[in-house]
Amino acid sequence: MSLINRSTRGVYAIVPTPFHPDGRLDLDSLRRLVDFYAAVGVDGLTVLGQTGEAPKLTQDESVEIAWAVLDRTDLPVVVGVSAPGFGTMRTLTDQVMTRGAAGVMIAPPTTLRTDDQIVGYYTQAATALGPDVPIVVQDHPLTFSVVMSVPALRRIACETPSVVMLKHEDWPGLEKISALRAAEENGEMPRLSIMCGNGGLFLDFEMARGADGAMTGYCFPELLVDVVRLTGDERHELFDAHLPLIRYEQQPGVGLAVRKHVLHRRGLLRSDAQRKPERTLTRTERDEVDLLLERLARRDTRTWL
Amino acid sequence: MSLINRSTRGVYAIVPTPFHPDGRLDLDSLRRLVDFYAAVGVDGLTVLGQTGEAPKLTQDESVEIAWAVLDRTDLPVVVGVSAPGFGTMRTLTDQVMTRGAAGVMIAPPTTLRTDDQIVGYYTQAATALGPDVPIVVQDHPLTFSVVMSVPALRRIACETPSVVMLKHEDWPGLEKISALRAAEENGEMPRLSIMCGNGGLFLDFEMARGADGAMTGYCFPELLVDVVRLTGDERHELFDAHLPLIRYEQQPGVGLAVRKHVLHRRGLLRSDAQRKPERTLTRTERDEVDLLLERLARRDTRTWL
Amino acid sequence: MSLINRSTRGVYAIVPTPFHPDGRLDLDSLRRLVDFYAAVGVDGLTVLGQTGEAPKLTQDESVEIAWAVLDRTDLPVVVGVSAPGFGTMRTLTDQVMTRGAAGVMIAPPTTLRTDDQIVGYYTQAATALGPDVPIVVQDHPLTFSVVMSVPALRRIACETPSVVMLKHEDWPGLEKISALRAAEENGEMPRLSIMCGNGGLFLDFEMARGADGAMTGYCFPELLVDVVRLTGDERHELFDAHLPLIRYEQQPGVGLAVRKHVLHRRGLLRSDAQRKPERTLTRTERDEVDLLLERLARRDTRTWL
Amino acid sequence: MSLINRSTRGVYAIVPTPFHPDGRLDLDSLRRLVDFYAAVGVDGLTVLGQTGEAPKLTQDESVEIAWAVLDRTDLPVVVGVSAPGFGTMRTLTDQVMTRGAAGVMIAPPTTLRTDDQIVGYYTQAATALGPDVPIVVQDHPLTFSVVMSVPALRRIACETPSVVMLKHEDWPGLEKISALRAAEENGEMPRLSIMCGNGGLFLDFEMARGADGAMTGYCFPELLVDVVRLTGDERHELFDAHLPLIRYEQQPGVGLAVRKHVLHRRGLLRSDAQRKPERTLTRTERDEVDLLLERLARRDTRTWL
Repeated sequence: MSLINRSTRGVYAIVPTPFHPDGRLDLDSLRRLVDFYAAVGVDGLTVLGQTGEAPKLTQDESVEIAWAVLDRTDLPVVVGVSAPGFGTMRTLTDQVMTRGAAGVMIAPPTTLRTDDQIVGYYTQAATALGPDVPIVVQDHPLTFSVVMSVPALRRIACETPSVVMLKHEDWPGLEKISALRAAEENGEMPRLSIMCGNGGLFLDFEMARGADGAMTGYCFPELLVDVVRLTGDERHELFDAHLPLIRYEQQPGVGLAVRKHVLHRRGLLRSDAQRKPERTLTRTERDEVDLLLERLARRDTRTWL
Repeated sequence: MSLINRSTRGVYAIVPTPFHPDGRLDLDSLRRLVDFYAAVGVDGLTVLGQTGEAPKLTQDESVEIAWAVLDRTDLPVVVGVSAPGFGTMRTLTDQVMTRGAAGVMIAPPTTLRTDDQIVGYYTQAATALGPDVPIVVQDHPLTFSVVMSVPALRRIACETPSVVMLKHEDWPGLEKISALRAAEENGEMPRLSIMCGNGGLFLDFEMARGADGAMTGYCFPELLVDVVRLTGDERHELFDAHLPLIRYEQQPGVGLAVRKHVLHRRGLLRSDAQRKPERTLTRTERDEVDLLLERLARRDTRTWL
Repeated sequence: MSLINRSTRGVYAIVPTPFHPDGRLDLDSLRRLVDFYAAVGVDGLTVLGQTGEAPKLTQDESVEIAWAVLDRTDLPVVVGVSAPGFGTMRTLTDQVMTRGAAGVMIAPPTTLRTDDQIVGYYTQAATALGPDVPIVVQDHPLTFSVVMSVPALRRIACETPSVVMLKHEDWPGLEKISALRAAEENGEMPRLSIMCGNGGLFLDFEMARGADGAMTGYCFPELLVDVVRLTGDERHELFDAHLPLIRYEQQPGVGLAVRKHVLHRRGLLRSDAQRKPERTLTRTERDEVDLLLERLARRDTRTWL
Repeated sequence: MSLINRSTRGVYAIVPTPFHPDGRLDLDSLRRLVDFYAAVGVDGLTVLGQTGEAPKLTQDESVEIAWAVLDRTDLPVVVGVSAPGFGTMRTLTDQVMTRGAAGVMIAPPTTLRTDDQIVGYYTQAATALGPDVPIVVQDHPLTFSVVMSVPALRRIACETPSVVMLKHEDWPGLEKISALRAAEENGEMPRLSIMCGNGGLFLDFEMARGADGAMTGYCFPELLVDVVRLTGDERHELFDAHLPLIRYEQQPGVGLAVRKHVLHRRGLLRSDAQRKPERTLTRTERDEVDLLLERLARRDTRTWL
């Protein structure tokens, strides 16, 4: 059992939760997805995030999904455990850490505003979970309405050793990576692992800014693996070929439907169903995605469907 | 088993969830609270709302609390069943309706903005729960960031017969009550039961505007019962005596702590504990509340502690 | 010409801008208002705030109003100079300070979120205005969506000597006053003058917490003067008599119409008109305010109209 | 003098306001920009928008800029006239319409939430400006926090003939275009001109959805002209070449600095200065933009700098 730490690097694929059209969990597709991610070379997995429709799961289902993934792979697995109460958060954390999870991811309550409130929340959460559970801080203002400043993150990194990773999804966010790395170099804070989200929309420059990799759910994780691995022109050429689709998938609300549609077309998900209330693709949107896929296949032949 | 309907009137007390200092449920205090509310003459109870710290409960605990209340009283009981997924919402609804609940209360997801989104959400929720479950719509922009216009509520009332009650907590909100009642009289919408929240801060005028009563958690439910029953100067005299405390209790964030402190001082709660993360009273705040109680007792001797 | 400073105390009445029904400035009423405020014993005036409908004025009108007030009274006058650009802010500031203003008030841009952003904004604004212009920071999250933490205010007080006063309108806000005063006593920050807003809704306790007074626009400034002057039971008795009306006037959106209606009934404003787009009182609202006035006159005979 | 109407098509370039490094207006650069836009074939211009730093201008400067543009070109010019008060809005509108403006653009106040509020605001604004002034509605939730539903826009189009154009910047927004066009075809609303913003980020698909063109400020307006003119694969090829830079320029906050930097490098702006408070490019950001320009020049040789 390996844990994530402040030097963790690479690509952590965010795993969507597969459902049957009637809303039941589809664990077969889940296991197929896990095998697929391992085969394309990701370094870890993340389950039960927003992309995983975690808020729509019962507590039992959350455990069922996390355990199914943990039992299927040797990759490190980060589990989303966000909850309004620390008691519930602690219970799920215990259930997945004892089964071999590599760490947990915690989103901020949407009511946090000031630096003190943000630092205080993660301090309390870390205390509730105990010092041995590595924590990922989710920094996604567009979804959570919480803006995490560099000084707030610096304080968290200094005061709470079990916070080891930042899931970086601020927008714009490039300068934030540079500012955190500069603070580290100036000895103002210990190193944090910085893994980038936002569907990869700025991953071409995020790596050059000092990010450690990607933690996101783009429907071609192969691209994330390559962009993290490549440098210079090669990186940009490949990234630019995918950008039209990345941009389309990154639209709020509809993004998950795009992702499930492509994973379904790739034969990985038996169904592209979401739990209700859901946002499905219209016919025109499906056509637009399919056109983007067709154009992409000309420049990255591995994406041919 | 009586269900709430579009003519329901009176006072529905919002029941806080009692905890032991270590975070465990305190069902003894819960039953004592239920008996107390019945004794002071409320017309119904509401459990598992925000005041009930519902988001911090496990799904099993939610059922445990609702059942404990339902088993203790013959009063109609409304149960909060808000959940990100309709599946979870449906499961809890079934568990409490078959045990004798009078209806369920649903808060809007904080992402809803337009009239169509709001109407659509309650239409889908009502479909998911089935036509036999009476629904209370929670209209509390300050907490949920969702502003429900009169036309949106009119459409919900017209199109979804199982939505029978509005928990009215808009601020300002007096004109909204008048506008809804005018729309009813003009035949533009069927009648809705309108029960007012906001800790009772405008209950003196809300009744005159046409509200059916109060659904809120003020620490002296006796006052709510009287204000709903009295009229004219008598109503205002009593209300004004309580207003300094009502205003203090109505402060966002700290209100629940005030409420639990007073219920604890009244001997109803064994402890004023909240689940973590919690907002407790400082020493000065306790002194301020106690001063308000002392002053209140001079004008309403029933409140002597 | 006296300037506000970090020890300024008392009541600064926020002056509404009088308009004729056709939208023109009514400077006669403005001068009558100024004389009235002086007669009831306020310690200063504030013009061109939100209550003054400042955003609806042309730049020339803003100067005209400020100068009319400055020319009419020897009371210290604070002028709202909030503007998206520092150039415009500087121009208006120069125009009023050279005419004898006591200081300027600056609201935060609604996009500020983190402590650094807030501190940075006031640092830049103070630099733009120069070291000799005393600045009031407006802390009103409900209107501006900006939450100012105690550490952020402490940094502003430490780093920017020309920021001398906090217009305190956070809600809840009592603990914030205590925290600032404690930080001062611990030597963590220099003293700030704290003047309370929110229509006076918590002024009874704010004074005991250490506030220096009130800066708000309640339609009976006599009450503000007395609550600041009195202590103990006497303070509470008087305050409680006014609370039903204070609470009604404090409703967002409609509050200014209540205020202008009462000042009109008091014979101070020739018209209760606002500039378009405006929110006027309905017939029922006027009746409700008049009922509150009638009830108030029984307990505070000075308010008889 | 030609006015915009409900059939207006093509590209309206949003003109940034050029400043000297000391903050003074640079009207020479402004005229150079106007000539440039005309030379590359845009169909119209828009001045005094957010991109034009309109809120940082004095009222006199706003007129000066609008007149300088109107005097320089025969292209139709839309002028941003957003203001908190209708009086100010009306004054600026009169000043530019009598000088030959083609219409005015109005952003919604950030406090609007419900359909009724939004429809009511534009109805009142149109009444204030009179029936002969063509109005552009700005639909940009990310900046203004106002979400305009299709039914709200339909009502505006039906009830207010002088609203002729939608500046479409919702995100996601493709389905909204389709829904508006479908409502038109079903006879539920008259036609609106739909001009797309968001820096062009979805212009490849927006045109196919039925948009009439682009109204945005991308630093290569040539690209907008071509994407509107071309179809099919040709459109996508060219668009995809620019997408990496479009995406970079579209970042909130920093976008205007990118735009001014490129227009400065193109020799059109003498300085890339913004008015204070401003957000300038860091050295690394400039390098990133320059890299994107270098890569772009390989695929679209016209962009060679």
